[in-house]
Amino acid sequence: MIWSRIKVASVTVASNSRRTAAAMLPVLVVHGGAGDVPTQRAELSCAGVREAARAGYALLRSGRSAMDAVVEAVTLLENNPAFNAGCGSVLNEHGGVEMDALVMDGRTLASGAVSAVRRIANPVQLARLVMEKTQHLCLTAEGASKFARAVGVPEVPEETLITDYARKRWQRNLQPGSNPVECQMGKMGTVGAVAVDSEGNVACATSTGGMLNKMEGRVGDTPCVVVIKWKYTLCQSWLTCIRGVKLQSWRAAANAGLTPVLEGHTVGKFHSSSGGPQCLRVKLRSWRGHSGCGFNSGPGGGTAAAG
Amino acid sequence: MIWSRIKVASVTVASNSRRTAAAMLPVLVVHGGAGDVPTQRAELSCAGVREAARAGYALLRSGRSAMDAVVEAVTLLENNPAFNAGCGSVLNEHGGVEMDALVMDGRTLASGAVSAVRRIANPVQLARLVMEKTQHLCLTAEGASKFARAVGVPEVPEETLITDYARKRWQRNLQPGSNPVECQMGKMGTVGAVAVDSEGNVACATSTGGMLNKMEGRVGDTPCVVVIKWKYTLCQSWLTCIRGVKLQSWRAAANAGLTPVLEGHTVGKFHSSSGGPQCLRVKLRSWRGHSGCGFNSGPGGGTAAAG
Repeated sequence: MIWSRIKVASVTVASNSRRTAAAMLPVLVVHGGAGDVPTQRAELSCAGVREAARAGYALLRSGRSAMDAVVEAVTLLENNPAFNAGCGSVLNEHGGVEMDALVMDGRTLASGAVSAVRRIANPVQLARLVMEKTQHLCLTAEGASKFARAVGVPEVPEETLITDYARKRWQRNLQPGSNPVECQMGKMGTVGAVAVDSEGNVACATSTGGMLNKMEGRVGDTPCVVVIKWKYTLCQSWLTCIRGVKLQSWRAAANAGLTPVLEGHTVGKFHSSSGGPQCLRVKLRSWRGHSGCGFNSGPGGGTAAAG
Repeated sequence: MIWSRIKVASVTVASNSRRTAAAMLPVLVVHGGAGDVPTQRAELSCAGVREAARAGYALLRSGRSAMDAVVEAVTLLENNPAFNAGCGSVLNEHGGVEMDALVMDGRTLASGAVSAVRRIANPVQLARLVMEKTQHLCLTAEGASKFARAVGVPEVPEETLITDYARKRWQRNLQPGSNPVECQMGKMGTVGAVAVDSEGNVACATSTGGMLNKMEGRVGDTPCVVVIKWKYTLCQSWLTCIRGVKLQSWRAAANAGLTPVLEGHTVGKFHSSSGGPQCLRVKLRSWRGHSGCGFNSGPGGGTAAAG
C-alpha cells in the first residue's frame, strides 16, 4: 500500500478483502490536523492518531455505527494534549480556550455543531448532542454552554484544557515583534475522522481550538456545513473531515507521482489531490454510492459537508 | 420586463441600455426574506424593499462600490421594523434578539460575518468591519460585541430592536400546544442584497434575526461562507445573497413558463430556478465574468459564497 511511503500523521484502518455488499468490512480514517508537525512532537502525534484510529475501528468491527466510530476517535484526539482540540487547544488573544466541532451523519444527512464553546472537555460529543437533541445545526458560545448544562454535559475548569505547550506559544506571540499569523502556519490544525461502517453508511467529525491568538469569538469554517453539490440523491452528496497532515509530504508525493490511492479497496477508494498552497482535498466513495470529499483550508480551518 | 408579472417583495434596479464595458451601468437586487408575506404586511414589506433598493442604487449611480450599495440597502432593511433583521428581528426562546449577518466582496474575495450578536442596530455594518479590520471571517456572540465596542460601534438597548409584532408572535409560541416550527414557516426570513457596480464588481450582504423561538446561541447558515466551486479564477467563483420572496409565486411563475430572466441586460443575466420545497436558486453573471448563485434554505436560513 502506497501510504507506507508517505510520512503522514493520519491513519487508515480497513479491510483488504474483496468488495461484497453482504459482508461489508468498515473503514476509518483519522487525522491529527493540517500543517507540519514539529519534529519533537511527531512521535506523540502519530501515536495519538494511531490510538484514536484503533479505538474507533474497534467499535466499527463490533458493529457500531460510523457516527459512533468518528466521535470515539475524535474524543480521543480531544483528550490527547498533543492535538489542537479539546485539551491542548491553542489559546485565543486573552489566553482562553474557545473550540469548534462538527459531526455529520451520511445516513440521515443530519449534522450538529458547536462554535466558540468554552469549558467543555469534548466539543465533538456536544456537537453530536446538538444534532440529536435540537432542531438546530449549530449552537455558539454561551448558548452552547447553556445547552450543555441542560443535557447534563459537565463543564470543566478551563485550566484543564490548557497545556504548558499551548501557554508557551501564546506567550511567545504576545512578545513585541511576534507574528501570530506566521507562528500559526505549519502548526497542528483541526483534527477529524471519517468512517464507513458495516452498513455502508458514512459519518464524519471534526474538532479544533482554532487559530493561535485568535480574537475572542472567532469562528472558522470547522463548524460550517457546506453543501457543495446537492443533486437530491445520497450518492451525489459530499462528506468531509478527511484532512491531510504533513501537507508538504503529501504534495511532494503527488508531484512525484505517488498518488495515495487505495485501489480495489473493500469499501471504497481513497483519493488525494493537492489544491492551492494551503489546500488539500481527499475523496472517499463507499460501496453504497455515498461519496465524500474533504479539504483543509489551512491550519485551524476546515470545511465540511456530508452525505 | 417579466418581473412586473410576478408579485414578489424584491426589487431589481438596473439600466436597460446595451452592454458596454466602457460605460457600465450598475445593478442592484434587494430582497426582504424568504417565505410568504402575511397579507396585512405585504404593502409595508414591498415599500421597504423598494426604499432600500433605491437608496442602494443611488449610491451605485454616484460611483460608489457594490459593497457600499448592498450595505446601505441592508442597513435600511435592518432599520425597518417590517423585516426579520435588526429592529424587527424574531425573538429567541427567552424573548431576546440574536442576529447574524454577512458581507462578501467579489472584487477582493474578502468576507466578514457576525453570528448571534446582540444589542447592535446594524449587524451588517459590523460584519463589514469584521471583514475590513480583522484577520477573521466571523466573530460570534460576546466576542463580536467586544469587537464592536473596540471599533466604536455603539450598543443599543435590546428593547429598541423588539417590535410589538415580534413580541406577540413570540408570546403566541409560548402558549400550550403551539408549534414554533410551524409558526416559523411562511414568515419573513433573512434579508439581503446583491449588486454589480459600475466597475463590474459584485458584492452581497445578508442579515437576519434567525428562527422564531430559536434556542439561545443558534446559528443558521446566513453567516457561513460557502466556497461552492473554486477554480482559481474570479470568473468561476460564486456569490449569493439573492433570495426570493413569495417563493410560491416564483415557483408558480416558473411552472407557467414565466422564468424571471432579464435577458440582454447591461450587466448580466438574472436567472431563477426552483429546487426542493424550501429551496430557491438565483444566478447572476456580470460582464466581467463574475458569476453568483444564491439559494435560500427556508425562512430564517441562507447560505452565501462570493466571487
